[in-house]
Amino acid sequence: MIKVVLDAFGGDNCPGCNIDGAINALKEKDDLKVILTGDENILNEELKKRGFSSDRLEIVNAPEVISLDESPVSAVRKKKESSLVKGIVMVKEGEADAFVSAGSSGAVLAGGQLLLGRLPGVQRPPLGTLIPTAKGVSFFLDMGANVDAKAEWLLQFAKMGSIYMKNVEGLDNPTVKLVNIGLEDEKGNALTKEVNELLKNDETINYQGYCEAREVPHGTADVIVADAFTGNAMIKMFEGTAGLFLTTMKKAFKDNLISKIGALLVMKSMKKALKPYDVSNYGGAPLLGVKGVMIKCHGNSKEKEIKNSVIQAYVFAKSKTNDIIAKAFEKV
Amino acid sequence: MIKVVLDAFGGDNCPGCNIDGAINALKEKDDLKVILTGDENILNEELKKRGFSSDRLEIVNAPEVISLDESPVSAVRKKKESSLVKGIVMVKEGEADAFVSAGSSGAVLAGGQLLLGRLPGVQRPPLGTLIPTAKGVSFFLDMGANVDAKAEWLLQFAKMGSIYMKNVEGLDNPTVKLVNIGLEDEKGNALTKEVNELLKNDETINYQGYCEAREVPHGTADVIVADAFTGNAMIKMFEGTAGLFLTTMKKAFKDNLISKIGALLVMKSMKKALKPYDVSNYGGAPLLGVKGVMIKCHGNSKEKEIKNSVIQAYVFAKSKTNDIIAKAFEKV
Repeated sequence: MIKVVLDAFGGDNCPGCNIDGAINALKEKDDLKVILTGDENILNEELKKRGFSSDRLEIVNAPEVISLDESPVSAVRKKKESSLVKGIVMVKEGEADAFVSAGSSGAVLAGGQLLLGRLPGVQRPPLGTLIPTAKGVSFFLDMGANVDAKAEWLLQFAKMGSIYMKNVEGLDNPTVKLVNIGLEDEKGNALTKEVNELLKNDETINYQGYCEAREVPHGTADVIVADAFTGNAMIKMFEGTAGLFLTTMKKAFKDNLISKIGALLVMKSMKKALKPYDVSNYGGAPLLGVKGVMIKCHGNSKEKEIKNSVIQAYVFAKSKTNDIIAKAFEKV
Repeated sequence: MIKVVLDAFGGDNCPGCNIDGAINALKEKDDLKVILTGDENILNEELKKRGFSSDRLEIVNAPEVISLDESPVSAVRKKKESSLVKGIVMVKEGEADAFVSAGSSGAVLAGGQLLLGRLPGVQRPPLGTLIPTAKGVSFFLDMGANVDAKAEWLLQFAKMGSIYMKNVEGLDNPTVKLVNIGLEDEKGNALTKEVNELLKNDETINYQGYCEAREVPHGTADVIVADAFTGNAMIKMFEGTAGLFLTTMKKAFKDNLISKIGALLVMKSMKKALKPYDVSNYGGAPLLGVKGVMIKCHGNSKEKEIKNSVIQAYVFAKSKTNDIIAKAFEKV
């Protein structure tokens, strides 16, 4: 049985969407147990409303909540009875295999680093994210955990990303590229030039050289590596541009009577074409290199993203990917 | 009379689209003269084909061409008879007011820095670009000239960007934001924290604080400042994501008979809604802070972008924006 703790009081749509996501994940996997952390009275009430009960769904009372405007580090240190801290501590103490939260990014990162700690040999834990591309999905890291990164950290991110894609996503020999402002060897800043050399000389990864940001949405590699500042800016630009396009398309559809009729006719095909780009299909962002499985969902996650993140955490834990990462870094 | 030199042999669609762009720019502005640099036999032939002649269109023979795979610095130094170098030298020697090219970015940047040189007080010339947003257009810089930037350079970029938007685009008191991975003061890397303090303490610019990349397509400020590595990655992510969306939309339209009929009905409204996001409306990327006006167009520019870039160069030169920049930096 794989035990996944879900922070029932993290995210904009908690606890309702979190509970629904947990229930639907349980329906998909028979050897999954979900532990909800949060105010037990509210959670019991909500479960009762849904008429759902299962011996694979447990509630652990954690009445405190960490809000988005709190300092993450002090919140993690002080709020021992929060749904977030209590969940992470269960992983730390071996009472659960994985932790999932749509709560404060800062608190999830701080909790992972302070409470779980790093796997031996890991210098910094990167936050990865699965981004939908024209060819499927790429694993992009680091997208927010370590600004002012050092070259060796990025080499480690490439290794951990490759292991993740192989073991959690089931890819054979995943390709790796490094984000740069051009493809020629002499292009780039001091960091990318140094990382490029390290990646070239590492035989454990399938390094394919530089890529430009433009190629990322087209699925240029399975693992895309960047420092957290660049990575965060790129992922947010991806989200911002996609959002702008959807708004513009909707505006065009509503423009006049003819466009409204056209929109009705094209809608089914449009939904089908856009479906692979729905990020909620792919779960959340794993924090790699910590002693435990941690998945951070978008703050605005609904039932589907929560469900997929719980299943992602389940696969991550079941595949013992962290043991494989630990073994790979042991040799370094 | 404002004299703009156009590199007739730069870009994927040269010289045809370049000549057409020049002719159409001349039709829009009566006090504009365009000087085409390139192989005079070919250019005369092409003009003859178009049956166009004007005393405001001059040809200067420059039979060499700088290709994309040449080392920019050595090409600029050696190929004195190239359409690119000859054009820039005309600006340097006061025979023309501005230079426009869709040729090699590296050669344009190298030419601007090596041949024209920096305005007094300017530490590094940034490459800016006008990006279409939900609210109109933002001026984004640096998008490729200076990686491993220093904080003072970014302060200068903010100043030059503000002066450009005021004098070339006619904006009153343009707002400035700095790209960061979060909005709180403690967020960011070492560079952004340092730049943030410099920007806050500069009274000549209308600084509005940090922005996240996600907000840029929505038009969060008139001037957006970033180091060239982040900026280049963001702009290319914007282009890559926009390209992916257009491809996906076209795929949906062609999906089946019903969607094809729907597409026909919605097409006019869609084109209208997408029109403001056509980058060719806004001309090219100005290299600021050099002794002369330089505009770099996209390599794949067609007639419209060339025409708009020539007009942009004309306005840039006519507004004497470089004199204003020089004056602002004199005091520093």
